[in-house]
Amino acid sequence: MSADLTKLVTDLAQRARAASLVLATAPTAAKNAALARLAVLLDSRMLPASTDALLTANQQDLAAARENQLTGAQIDRLTLSAPRIAQMAEGVRQVAALPDPVGEELERTVRPNGLEIRKIRVPIGVIGIIYEARPNVTVDCAGLCLKSGNAAILRGGKESFHTNTALAALIAQALAQAGLPADAVQLIPTTDRAALTTLLKLDTLVHCIIPRGGESLIRFVAENSTIPVIKHFKGVCFVYVDRDADPDMAERIVLNAKVQRPGVCNAAEQLLVHAGAADALLPRLARALLAKKVELRCDPASAAILKKHQLAGRAAQPADFSTEFLDLIMGVRVTPSLDDAIATINRDSSAHTDAIVTRDAAAARRFLAGVDSAVVLWNASTRFNDGFEFGLGAEIGISTDRLHARGPMGLRELCSYKYVVTGSGQVRG
Amino acid sequence: MSADLTKLVTDLAQRARAASLVLATAPTAAKNAALARLAVLLDSRMLPASTDALLTANQQDLAAARENQLTGAQIDRLTLSAPRIAQMAEGVRQVAALPDPVGEELERTVRPNGLEIRKIRVPIGVIGIIYEARPNVTVDCAGLCLKSGNAAILRGGKESFHTNTALAALIAQALAQAGLPADAVQLIPTTDRAALTTLLKLDTLVHCIIPRGGESLIRFVAENSTIPVIKHFKGVCFVYVDRDADPDMAERIVLNAKVQRPGVCNAAEQLLVHAGAADALLPRLARALLAKKVELRCDPASAAILKKHQLAGRAAQPADFSTEFLDLIMGVRVTPSLDDAIATINRDSSAHTDAIVTRDAAAARRFLAGVDSAVVLWNASTRFNDGFEFGLGAEIGISTDRLHARGPMGLRELCSYKYVVTGSGQVRG
Repeated sequence: MSADLTKLVTDLAQRARAASLVLATAPTAAKNAALARLAVLLDSRMLPASTDALLTANQQDLAAARENQLTGAQIDRLTLSAPRIAQMAEGVRQVAALPDPVGEELERTVRPNGLEIRKIRVPIGVIGIIYEARPNVTVDCAGLCLKSGNAAILRGGKESFHTNTALAALIAQALAQAGLPADAVQLIPTTDRAALTTLLKLDTLVHCIIPRGGESLIRFVAENSTIPVIKHFKGVCFVYVDRDADPDMAERIVLNAKVQRPGVCNAAEQLLVHAGAADALLPRLARALLAKKVELRCDPASAAILKKHQLAGRAAQPADFSTEFLDLIMGVRVTPSLDDAIATINRDSSAHTDAIVTRDAAAARRFLAGVDSAVVLWNASTRFNDGFEFGLGAEIGISTDRLHARGPMGLRELCSYKYVVTGSGQVRG
Repeated sequence: MSADLTKLVTDLAQRARAASLVLATAPTAAKNAALARLAVLLDSRMLPASTDALLTANQQDLAAARENQLTGAQIDRLTLSAPRIAQMAEGVRQVAALPDPVGEELERTVRPNGLEIRKIRVPIGVIGIIYEARPNVTVDCAGLCLKSGNAAILRGGKESFHTNTALAALIAQALAQAGLPADAVQLIPTTDRAALTTLLKLDTLVHCIIPRGGESLIRFVAENSTIPVIKHFKGVCFVYVDRDADPDMAERIVLNAKVQRPGVCNAAEQLLVHAGAADALLPRLARALLAKKVELRCDPASAAILKKHQLAGRAAQPADFSTEFLDLIMGVRVTPSLDDAIATINRDSSAHTDAIVTRDAAAARRFLAGVDSAVVLWNASTRFNDGFEFGLGAEIGISTDRLHARGPMGLRELCSYKYVVTGSGQVRG
């Protein structure tokens, strides 16, 4: 059985590698045709039969989900509906409309010996995407990999296995109808953990692994992969309100960063307030957060200020100050100085997204240079760390790694480069 | 003992991380001052006492090397001399003279909501360098990491342990004298394998591992590291002589690629000749290679041609066609077509450096697009895949990975980037 599984995954990866070599030089028009065809196959207004097949597969997953007593929220994430499928189709059309990143000349130099050296953007090759329940990830990732000329190996969660299988069949059909290899996007046809572990060791066939999901899945992937992984474990994002912050702006940004969508990685989890502004500002910020039902977990200094104003704040545990709550909870601390704020963030944040609110340009510059995070913001909400907000047109994830891609990753971040050297018979002396 | 070792390596990495935050915003002048000081400390004409200490440490390693019966070549690689030390000093001065890659603005966009998004080049952070005998690597890597604003953790081979320790002491002295943290470059003070394994798991403190050395060392590192690794395992480089190759140029390039320095990763190991040119060209190429004492390991087609001309070629084993010989040996095959040549290279090369020799521009374009290697060349020797030859001014290695850096890696490839976002109170709706 285990030998069979190894063979199954290895064969699949070999087919992906072969497909990737075709895809790497495929014309933009062919890739866009496959995406357009996929959008048609998904769109219930155009092909009700294929949508029906998808909904039937989804019903199988939903029945299993109810049997396994998944939570309401989990079942909701899993559920496909005609509008949700239409949304997937629209996403695919948007990716088709983006410029093709492949083939762009990034640099060109001519050396004194006459060699012309060009640095050209090319696909990475074969990308493995490891993800959890949401079935739209199947279509999003397939579309982004295809547009950037990469073959994709998808390994979704077991909760959405039937839905993913049906989606993968539509993707293969779209590829074939556009004259591209159907093996360019393949779903691993089992959710056996051993298949995943096998995949993560195929470093001669697969060039990059992108895990998307909870921290434990991502840690499992990072620890077991001999293939390079691009990831972020979590988003413990800070808003630092400086001594010289505009009070209205501070309230607006803290509130937006915390409550606009608390369950996502770029939501703020931690509030730092400069001691020189805490007496004046913290009660106002706390009042606004409490009005939105945010629980405040406070250090002694912030707790004392809140108490003076009869505002509710509970004493924090040390771990609260580096926790990703993904909920209406916020760590609150008073910091004696800008330098201390920078050091605190470099120690306790997840280096994902951190913001300063201040009118003091010199303080902002020190913060932006000194905070060692993927995205640092001055007078703007942490919620802006996002591929669409950055104008990338799409997003396959956000990286807190420092190699290859950092911050939001779009089509260009799914590419590598190669050097193309043109000579006239040069040899080395 | 093992707990002690874990603590030793972890403490060292924590100091490196702290130093990296200082180094990340250190002015160019301070980094250059440290490099200039290091060059003085190394230069025997200026400070004979510090050179003497270095040579004494080197003598200890050499005595052990003789006792352990290392080969003459190994002992030579290990040996320091006044000219070799002067060469190290000169290398450090050259790195000081290169432009500082840190702080460069790579992109700037202003979004419709007024947010200004700048992509700025920043150091990676803490880089671990794992290498083998040559002690000059200690100084080269320290210099490149320092100039690019990264803290370095060095782990050299046991053969050069005393020499490396003496070099690391000079580097620490130079850093301190320039007002930079001495912990910015640290040598792991033991060659116990367990210390290396511990280091490779410290993924919250160390951001990148660069192994340099033989394939088995690099595989060990890649398999045991939870930190991203940039590497190349080996260089199995091809020269493909197309049907329409200029005969003089083909001979010159094949000869240079194979024999100019056969022990390096960008030397050619494999020769492919188009069937349409093999009768006319292969005897000439073989004669030139044999005159330089290159052993030819031939497929049946090339063997038959050589035999017709009474030229020596032995029958190849299948493994010969994907082997890195690092010696005066070459695999030789006749290929029926350009497409077959491209497929052969994509299957058997190590995706490091592959060249085509042809006068046919259309064939060249297909080769350059279709061969999926870090560096592809048209009418030039594979030996040009090199940081200095590419004009990078320095080289810390050559990558065959597809993430982050591919091909020769200089100072810019030792950097990451961050996004710096400036707003005026923007929040997400």
